[in-house]
Amino acid sequence: VKARGAHDGAGKTAPAPSSELERIARLARVFGEQKGDPSIVRAIGDDAAVLDPALRAAGGAEKIVWTIDAQVEGVHFRADLASWRDVGWRSFMAAASDLAAMGASPWCALSALVLPRSIDDGALDALSAGQAEAARVVGAPVIGGNLSRGGETSITTTLLGTCVRPLARIAERGDGIWIAGALGLAAAGLAALERKLDPSDDDVARAVLAWRTPCARIEDGLALAANEAVRGAIDVSDGLARDLAHIATASGLCALLDEAALRAHVEPPLSTLARTLGVSALDLALHGGEDYALIAAGAGEVDGFVRIGRFEEGEGVALEDASGARRPVDPRGFDHFR
Amino acid sequence: VKARGAHDGAGKTAPAPSSELERIARLARVFGEQKGDPSIVRAIGDDAAVLDPALRAAGGAEKIVWTIDAQVEGVHFRADLASWRDVGWRSFMAAASDLAAMGASPWCALSALVLPRSIDDGALDALSAGQAEAARVVGAPVIGGNLSRGGETSITTTLLGTCVRPLARIAERGDGIWIAGALGLAAAGLAALERKLDPSDDDVARAVLAWRTPCARIEDGLALAANEAVRGAIDVSDGLARDLAHIATASGLCALLDEAALRAHVEPPLSTLARTLGVSALDLALHGGEDYALIAAGAGEVDGFVRIGRFEEGEGVALEDASGARRPVDPRGFDHFR
Repeated sequence: VKARGAHDGAGKTAPAPSSELERIARLARVFGEQKGDPSIVRAIGDDAAVLDPALRAAGGAEKIVWTIDAQVEGVHFRADLASWRDVGWRSFMAAASDLAAMGASPWCALSALVLPRSIDDGALDALSAGQAEAARVVGAPVIGGNLSRGGETSITTTLLGTCVRPLARIAERGDGIWIAGALGLAAAGLAALERKLDPSDDDVARAVLAWRTPCARIEDGLALAANEAVRGAIDVSDGLARDLAHIATASGLCALLDEAALRAHVEPPLSTLARTLGVSALDLALHGGEDYALIAAGAGEVDGFVRIGRFEEGEGVALEDASGARRPVDPRGFDHFR
Repeated sequence: VKARGAHDGAGKTAPAPSSELERIARLARVFGEQKGDPSIVRAIGDDAAVLDPALRAAGGAEKIVWTIDAQVEGVHFRADLASWRDVGWRSFMAAASDLAAMGASPWCALSALVLPRSIDDGALDALSAGQAEAARVVGAPVIGGNLSRGGETSITTTLLGTCVRPLARIAERGDGIWIAGALGLAAAGLAALERKLDPSDDDVARAVLAWRTPCARIEDGLALAANEAVRGAIDVSDGLARDLAHIATASGLCALLDEAALRAHVEPPLSTLARTLGVSALDLALHGGEDYALIAAGAGEVDGFVRIGRFEEGEGVALEDASGARRPVDPRGFDHFR
């Protein structure tokens, strides 16, 4: 048997990574703690997972909600700015946030990992521990997946949830724009990390935490689905303007943001941080992604949410200031191919 | 607006790739042809797909089978040896094969693509057309997914299927080892491509086709699930010996292959090709992957399958020759981390 240790920069010999089967066994141990749901019939260790929808559905009226999301090294995360545990956590939460946006109750997940040689068993353990921790918080155990070699780390998470009333990306004229959760804070946190701002500063620490360990707003999504005044919803993954534009376009309406309400919602600590970073707090709030706030279109009050605008005739996204003057907002945000 | 055309090797300016939203719209057109299943409530264009299990289940007794598989450039395919259409097709079939191995009826799929800048719109169109074609053949439309930028192309496919009796990776002592489908042919095809063997040769052409456009054996899987004599099943993705070892290990038995029956099953054209390639046909049959043959453990006759051995006391995988002499088979095959 040949030694397969890889030499790292310091000249030490790194331990050989486990074989694929050994790694699957490691992952089964990390993810296997989460059991006890009778609707999960078979998990890791077969060609596929097996679920029983009849044991899941309360009366059989439930629909299944299904989403997939990928996080790629160098695009969604940099290993020098987050621990592998954080990378695992946030990749899971990014995927789970789509269930929140549908008003769904999380059921279970599969995780497909592409791992380069540089990911040793310790990094894999940390990554999967972060996924498992997020899965526990979300309430959707990882019950299977796939392992592959590759040139760059990527983590693809697919989740199933169930719901009675899935929330589409729709609104009607006159609906309020309601929000729960921070805006721009994760983007400020990433910028603070890149600029090496003092991590002991309270505002910096809070923003870095927002970027490293975001939380899918599952409970808020369930509350939206239970509220008959709520027409539609979306999560803010690419930036408020861009994600709001999806609802506006789908509904043939203009999403009109109340600038004062939006500014009030994001202060503090965004204004302080924005000053330190030399950027506009409003720009961060409009275009910063990865906070996974939830946006709802509601015909009435939406408990637990803050009203920051309304849907009107027109198109696109616009800001209205205190004088009633409006200016269009470019629905830019993160685009993977621009 | 800056021009974003990339220069290719010949000095021509390639057209700028479409934006993420434009690409999602392109994909929605390619995948949108497949409609008409009332259990698919909502597809591409929302935060998640929505399914209605009650409209899918025939009487509510059906279980859900869920799998995920990733194909990574340089690991599972080389863009110089297969067209993007083939890459799309085979990535879908590789994932669908796990449904076949569970005896499940395909329902629908999500596709997560990681694309480097080198994948222009034409390549994406071809890739997604290959996925859509395979999805049609399998009977599982692509109803959503994810698009991300990355340094290397990877295609992750997750599929849902339904079944009444999912087939695990199990056998009992005395069960026959039954097979449907080619062994080693895809591996021979890949070797033929790498060695630039004459593509007009019939055997070469057949092997190359086996590697480029494999088919998940969905009908065979459904027949297995309907046959009460069948105990368990697995698909051959990593090689017969390695995949058979999964059943042997899980069942605490030895998978004893009948060498004569195995040789008879793979001739022709494998023997001819093996001679041309200067490798052992038996080695190709035992260790070549990506043909997606189906293996069943059956207590009785398995219609449409060929018997190539039996499960006995012991462990691992072994070959028995005509004289009854046995030799162990190393369950090697493709390991992503060795």
